[in-house]
Amino acid sequence: MKILLVGAQGTLGRAVAAELGARHEIITAGRRSGDVRIDLSDRDSIVQAFAQVGSVDAVVSAAGNVAFAPLLELTDAQWQMGLGDKLMGQVNLALAAVGHLSDGGSITLTTGVLADQPIRSGAQASLVNSAIHGFVMGAAIELPRGIRINAVSPNVLQESTDDYAPYFRGFEPVTAARAALGFSRSVEGAETGKVYRVY
Amino acid sequence: MKILLVGAQGTLGRAVAAELGARHEIITAGRRSGDVRIDLSDRDSIVQAFAQVGSVDAVVSAAGNVAFAPLLELTDAQWQMGLGDKLMGQVNLALAAVGHLSDGGSITLTTGVLADQPIRSGAQASLVNSAIHGFVMGAAIELPRGIRINAVSPNVLQESTDDYAPYFRGFEPVTAARAALGFSRSVEGAETGKVYRVY
Ligand SMILES: NC(=O)c1ccc[n+]([C@@H]2O[C@H](COP(=O)([O-])OP(=O)(O)OC[C@H]3O[C@@H](n4cnc5c(N)ncnc54)[C@H](OP(=O)(O)O)[C@@H]3O)[C@@H](O)[C@H]2O)c1
Ligand SMILES: NC(=O)c1ccc[n+]([C@@H]2O[C@H](COP(=O)([O-])OP(=O)(O)OC[C@H]3O[C@@H](n4cnc5c(N)ncnc54)[C@H](OP(=O)(O)O)[C@@H]3O)[C@@H](O)[C@H]2O)c1
Repeated sequence: MKILLVGAQGTLGRAVAAELGARHEIITAGRRSGDVRIDLSDRDSIVQAFAQVGSVDAVVSAAGNVAFAPLLELTDAQWQMGLGDKLMGQVNLALAAVGHLSDGGSITLTTGVLADQPIRSGAQASLVNSAIHGFVMGAAIELPRGIRINAVSPNVLQESTDDYAPYFRGFEPVTAARAALGFSRSVEGAETGKVYRVY
Repeated sequence: MKILLVGAQGTLGRAVAAELGARHEIITAGRRSGDVRIDLSDRDSIVQAFAQVGSVDAVVSAAGNVAFAPLLELTDAQWQMGLGDKLMGQVNLALAAVGHLSDGGSITLTTGVLADQPIRSGAQASLVNSAIHGFVMGAAIELPRGIRINAVSPNVLQESTDDYAPYFRGFEPVTAARAALGFSRSVEGAETGKVYRVY
């Protein structure tokens, strides 16, 4: 398979590239890194990247930013950022992918444990991750040509605990390599409309 | 209790007004109807309405618009509308409410069965309803002074089947009066971070 992987240089993305790259051709993408440049928050960049890459068998996002802040301190700019980047960025990636995916191809988006479990300063992340779960469920029944769509929802990553541990006390970290198995389930499996929770 | 009810003139809102109005003082709100005018998609109108109404014990939304269209035909304008109206409109209502709610007061938002069950042309509704479920869960643990937040997720309403039946074949309609009980659970109960599914 030929797989476009957005966020391939990231903590999660590197593990996804290692897992899927063992058996497939990976085209890497990021804002400032990768074979092609994509900024999820800029739909034109997504469209341009697909024009460059042509046809693919799978599109995977291991990227997307949300704002973490105390609920009552989230600014307008932070709401716009989160909704424009991790949420609509991944929705736009999925919708743009349809015209470039082979029959039976797949779209895999990234969410996270905050969809199911809240933390302080995490309300926007819970909103955005849950929104993507709803989108994946809804989009799955409308995609043409057997194109599939799923999400992978990892717990906090062991590799990120230096940064995130104080926010995620008591959460059981998973390795990025284990989270990457969710992407393998989605890309190499046959299901659609699923959320692979790696908790 | 003094309860601000947005969408009080609607199919769902009238039933909520009947249920809660039997025991409490209802201040009605809508874009073109009600004691005060609120357009959820216009945050200034929310802020102005609260300035007018002053302090309340509960804020209830029985309003919010999303776009229904085949997934690949949803326009940019339709995405902006749905995210700005039912999603961020209700989020902004909740956040603006905090400064006007009494200790232990409540916020109740409306979602719908599409959060859990997809229909054709309903991907945006699934996204938005799920997003609000995530927001309610995340916001509940951060609200000050015992302020609570819940959502009510009704199945398609019996009163709306003339309009919606072709999209909801096989779904079991509920009466607006039964859906209104979910609002009573939220406003008159003591829970927070819950989704009352009326399916
Ligand atoms: N780390 C965790 O513990 C954890 C747990 C659960 C879920 N997640 C989710 O997993 C995703 C990746 O997290 P991560 O920790 O691996 O992040 P990361 O290490 O910061 O990596 C993000 C990668 O994505 C690219 N990127 C960032 N924003 C982008 C955008 N708007 N458009 C395109 N590419 C973008 C970055 O490269 P460029 O700088 O070149 O763009 C980078 O390669 C996020 O959605 C995060 O919420 C992470
Ligand atoms: N009907 C169903 O079967 C059903 C099932 C599940 C969930 N829901 C959800 O329940 C909510 C209400 O549905 P409904 O069928 O009762 O709708 P409806 O009959 O059209 O009533 C909507 C009410 O809200 C007001 N309104 C509409 N948009 C508004 C906005 N942006 N800001 C403030 N007020 C607004 C309207 O009055 P003005 O025109 O004066 O603004 C009207 O009073 C919606 O979120 C819907 O998705 C409905």
